[in-house]
Amino acid sequence: MMKLTILGCHSATPKENKHTTSQLLEVKGKFFLIDCGEGTQIQLRKLKIKFSLIQHIFISHLHGDHFYGLIGLISTFRLLGRTTQLNIYGPKGIKEIITLQLKMSNSWTDYSLHFHELSSPNSEKIFEDDTICVSTLPLDHRIYTNGFLFTTKTVKRKINSKATESLNLEPFHYSQLQNGLDIELANGIFKENKELTLNPEPSKKYAYCSDTAYNKKLISLIKGVDLLYHEATFLEKHADLAKKTKHSTALQAAKIANSANVKKLLLGHYSNRYSDKKDFIKEASTVFESILLSEDLKTYSI
Amino acid sequence: MMKLTILGCHSATPKENKHTTSQLLEVKGKFFLIDCGEGTQIQLRKLKIKFSLIQHIFISHLHGDHFYGLIGLISTFRLLGRTTQLNIYGPKGIKEIITLQLKMSNSWTDYSLHFHELSSPNSEKIFEDDTICVSTLPLDHRIYTNGFLFTTKTVKRKINSKATESLNLEPFHYSQLQNGLDIELANGIFKENKELTLNPEPSKKYAYCSDTAYNKKLISLIKGVDLLYHEATFLEKHADLAKKTKHSTALQAAKIANSANVKKLLLGHYSNRYSDKKDFIKEASTVFESILLSEDLKTYSI
Repeated sequence: MMKLTILGCHSATPKENKHTTSQLLEVKGKFFLIDCGEGTQIQLRKLKIKFSLIQHIFISHLHGDHFYGLIGLISTFRLLGRTTQLNIYGPKGIKEIITLQLKMSNSWTDYSLHFHELSSPNSEKIFEDDTICVSTLPLDHRIYTNGFLFTTKTVKRKINSKATESLNLEPFHYSQLQNGLDIELANGIFKENKELTLNPEPSKKYAYCSDTAYNKKLISLIKGVDLLYHEATFLEKHADLAKKTKHSTALQAAKIANSANVKKLLLGHYSNRYSDKKDFIKEASTVFESILLSEDLKTYSI
Repeated sequence: MMKLTILGCHSATPKENKHTTSQLLEVKGKFFLIDCGEGTQIQLRKLKIKFSLIQHIFISHLHGDHFYGLIGLISTFRLLGRTTQLNIYGPKGIKEIITLQLKMSNSWTDYSLHFHELSSPNSEKIFEDDTICVSTLPLDHRIYTNGFLFTTKTVKRKINSKATESLNLEPFHYSQLQNGLDIELANGIFKENKELTLNPEPSKKYAYCSDTAYNKKLISLIKGVDLLYHEATFLEKHADLAKKTKHSTALQAAKIANSANVKKLLLGHYSNRYSDKKDFIKEASTVFESILLSEDLKTYSI
């Protein structure tokens, strides 16, 4: 299971109680930060998580509402005495911006800071460990922009302790069972794997797509994901503005969700011009059913 | 008269309700922003002032808690359709940091943005108009840092309307009176200036000094100012830390205020390690009487 907390879901300029884009994804006790608008570190403090558990930050593009909080977060990590490595994934140029500011302030980090600069126009795997795989989702925006697809790995089969408790199994038996193998007991009796194990939690997929014009190329990359976050900066009545600024309307986001047959759609990146967010649901639900609205500091289970 | 509003008075890392350094100085309807920590634009929104009235921003040094909010503010000004010029005064390097970020995001400002980069180790006049003069106060910190001295200009003498109402004065008479001259009435009678005018508001001085080690060289530059903001990051029990990081204690700030014979001392830039700010007053008042404590969003008259 993944847990997604929205730190900010508003576009363009931050205001009191309206934070620009940032999200925190939790996967088995590991935290992945996605985008980092100004003030993200203050939002993060409210969650009271241990900052050192954030070891990977993914930046979609170099518009300010998606990364102006990054330099402050990097500095705060240093001031708090961080020692664990930090990895930043983002467009080419991000390293220059951050290191220039560290250089000018003579404030190099004491922890190791790794930049993984992206420039490919195609989807590529950019991170993988034993629990998750992250790949890019090329988006269609005014500057080079990627969304990110987070896919949890199918974990080992679960031991059915009720079924195994009377069998006096050795440690290697458990390992065999977790790996899906049948086992031979000490007395020579064979046991089928399915008798002694339960199905593992299925792999989960979260697709993050902000910012982007309506982009059909996305559909094949996000087929059937459990949750799609898709920007909906505008409503259809401002479709001309959406086209001009290479953003999407709520309807367009829903069309992508529908075509990709995703399980749930989460809308966000609202323009400040709309006061009633229910209009986004109303518009999107004409073509897709299962819709959620992002709210700052709200958590969504995936 | 000047009005100083503290937008943030905390050091190092911003937290909820604890903003890093930024101040807004109002002089006759003009607004001067001094330093610009992360989230300053959100603090500014709370004051509900017209952003276009801020035409001059003074940055003391390139540590993050004093300028990480600048790029966001510059971007927001653009997004709000600003047309009036903006002047940034700050250490050499500030232009490169800001323009690199504008370049990478392909978001050049539509208004004219002027950088006035500072590198002199001596006090110098950096801005002057018909109401105010601003000069630098070289500080002793870990990187190149300036405080700023704001001096309002002595305005013209005030017409004493009670004394003039029966005299049937011509417009040129008023102008002569405001400039301190005696006048000759239409009937040939002479009137002394002092009979018909009141003293103008005296020139006011505000000295902003953050961040700095205890620095006696400051004293001659800030003699007799109406208000001295002096950083007090630490209390004397952490004097070793103050020395190491080139900051001041509350006692040191008070000693500077006392030696410079200033009218009032405003303390700020508190380290996050102290919960009770009254200890700053207690310590400083052993050598100086008239002490104020900075509070976020509080306004002080000068």
